[in-house]
Amino acid sequence: MDFNYYLPVNLMFGPGKINLLGMETKKYGTKALLVTGTHSTKASGLLDKACRLLEQEGIEVVVFDQVNQNPTTTTASEGNAIAKREKCDVVIGLGGGSIMDCAKAIAFMYYNDGEIFDYIFGVKSGSQSLPLIQVPTTCGTGSEGNCFAVLTNPLNNDKKSLKNMSSVAKVSIIDPDLMKTMPKELIATVGFDALCHNMEAYISKITQPLVEIQTLYSIRLIADSLVRLYEGKGNSEDYEKLTLASTIGGMSINMAGVTAAHGLEHPASGLKDIAHGKGLAALSPVVYEATIDSAPEKFRQMAQLLGGKTELDFVPVLNEMLGALNLKITLGSLGLKKEDVEWMTDNCLKVSAPSLSVHPKSFGRDEIMELYYKSI
Amino acid sequence: MDFNYYLPVNLMFGPGKINLLGMETKKYGTKALLVTGTHSTKASGLLDKACRLLEQEGIEVVVFDQVNQNPTTTTASEGNAIAKREKCDVVIGLGGGSIMDCAKAIAFMYYNDGEIFDYIFGVKSGSQSLPLIQVPTTCGTGSEGNCFAVLTNPLNNDKKSLKNMSSVAKVSIIDPDLMKTMPKELIATVGFDALCHNMEAYISKITQPLVEIQTLYSIRLIADSLVRLYEGKGNSEDYEKLTLASTIGGMSINMAGVTAAHGLEHPASGLKDIAHGKGLAALSPVVYEATIDSAPEKFRQMAQLLGGKTELDFVPVLNEMLGALNLKITLGSLGLKKEDVEWMTDNCLKVSAPSLSVHPKSFGRDEIMELYYKSI
Repeated sequence: MDFNYYLPVNLMFGPGKINLLGMETKKYGTKALLVTGTHSTKASGLLDKACRLLEQEGIEVVVFDQVNQNPTTTTASEGNAIAKREKCDVVIGLGGGSIMDCAKAIAFMYYNDGEIFDYIFGVKSGSQSLPLIQVPTTCGTGSEGNCFAVLTNPLNNDKKSLKNMSSVAKVSIIDPDLMKTMPKELIATVGFDALCHNMEAYISKITQPLVEIQTLYSIRLIADSLVRLYEGKGNSEDYEKLTLASTIGGMSINMAGVTAAHGLEHPASGLKDIAHGKGLAALSPVVYEATIDSAPEKFRQMAQLLGGKTELDFVPVLNEMLGALNLKITLGSLGLKKEDVEWMTDNCLKVSAPSLSVHPKSFGRDEIMELYYKSI
Repeated sequence: MDFNYYLPVNLMFGPGKINLLGMETKKYGTKALLVTGTHSTKASGLLDKACRLLEQEGIEVVVFDQVNQNPTTTTASEGNAIAKREKCDVVIGLGGGSIMDCAKAIAFMYYNDGEIFDYIFGVKSGSQSLPLIQVPTTCGTGSEGNCFAVLTNPLNNDKKSLKNMSSVAKVSIIDPDLMKTMPKELIATVGFDALCHNMEAYISKITQPLVEIQTLYSIRLIADSLVRLYEGKGNSEDYEKLTLASTIGGMSINMAGVTAAHGLEHPASGLKDIAHGKGLAALSPVVYEATIDSAPEKFRQMAQLLGGKTELDFVPVLNEMLGALNLKITLGSLGLKKEDVEWMTDNCLKVSAPSLSVHPKSFGRDEIMELYYKSI
């Protein structure tokens, strides 16, 4: 055993925890930039509620509601300009992973000038962010449990994580009841993303004991809840299970990284703006089929949690779950073409080198091309 | 599910990690108060090695080597006076739980004047400590994984924890190889303490999902390693298992608290300066016998990890382990007398109210007296 475990998350988890938003935010600032999306939190009334909770505690609120799926550095820059102009002293992410990641980028850019991709690629370094509060409204990304902010550069479609420990939220308010407004298709894609985070951290070459037990626990939680929620048969306890598994997935990839499935997916969603969970659904079975012989014991453990017996059952039971979620799809069906494989392969080697390096099987350029072709 | 998870530990775990001591300490200070005991780290050569590692990185070292078992507030005050006089800017605990706890108290007293028991009983509050580095040399207390500092007031024998989040170490260097110099009797008592932390946090009324899975994992690690190490048949992997279980136990009680066995033990070791693990060995079977019907499923889980089948096997398998560790003892054999029961009961209600309140079964004054009588 040889590991470093450091992840100063502060999780407030439970139904109704949203009501703590004002009191918790007050500990860190007086004027909040509330980062959210263009639609969902308005339609559900959550944005109004959040503003009310903040204002009740005397916190001024500036809303930035321009974040879309696969957020770009341009959007983050716009948010940062507003935070600076309005002299905000705390940033709140209220929404799904794209929104929480964009909130992290905005809070980081407040203290770190220049191109954010310079920090992402390690050309520049920074160590400070505005204090961050995260309130997830989807249960997939786990962004509330880690320091990663996945951003896309619109100039060249590079999609890659900013990794800076200052991006860990001062507090994450994780209210499983907020997940109840998700449409079923979204439950499927974000839930599958959460499953992938846990599986990838579990098989990572740099995993560690606490991550292993957390991820196995989460895989069981997802196996117990995801399909039932997608089918509309889930109850509050199922939402709690999936939500906790999502947060743990986010925490686990902070410690152990993601591996090849995420590594190959980022170029696809960077290029075509597809839903991240769908890209993972297309790629994961193909990537795992090629990986099982490098970590048979781990795939046996995961297969058993998903309803199989041996490592050879792993891809079949995964496909069974994807079928139940209506996610048996290909990259081709998502708009990717054979002509895109060469670009995706080169881009994967560029943006996903760390993920590939901790994957239990080593994939070179030819193998990556092959995996993309098989997924199309 | 409803919980708050916050524990910003920074664990560097693995054989040989002691060699990081100088480099890690340098991040937090230039002049270290190195807190250690009167004997073990000198006899093993570890103290010399630690000083060398620190000095190699240009760190001045002041050694405070006056800490004994069940450290008193007087000892902590002496250490604090030296830290202030010598203008130390970082505190290192090098030793077992008593030493690490004393180091925490010294680091806390640096910024918080007056009687430390006023902070322990909540009469005063503080939020700052000198930066702390912890290096455990026993694997029982788990002090390197939490904010607790158990201290004894020599004026009235009150033994109670200072609980202040500023006492969480900036980094804990956990090197399982350092455990190899422990004599076998010490392995038994500290290992049993680690088991108790995990069991008590698991059954606590305020336990939470991550604590439950961590503690079950640790109980398994201890079941796999402790008796073998005591019998001199253990290998390096066994030391790693017991050491990790100890750290996790410390982390878990920070989240979920200890329960009645620790609650009843503190008055005993406060009064007679007995080894904490021995007090727990005398009390735990009696406390658990009276508790099983309040949490049968939890005791069934733990019984299975220790080699039994149902909850009714729990106390027998626990006693079997205690027998194998030569720890089937009574409070009477440790010097406690029937005449002490009344004092211990009153003291328990005074110092251990929080532990009693999260125990799965409610014990009043009469029941506590009865438990003490049965343990004598």
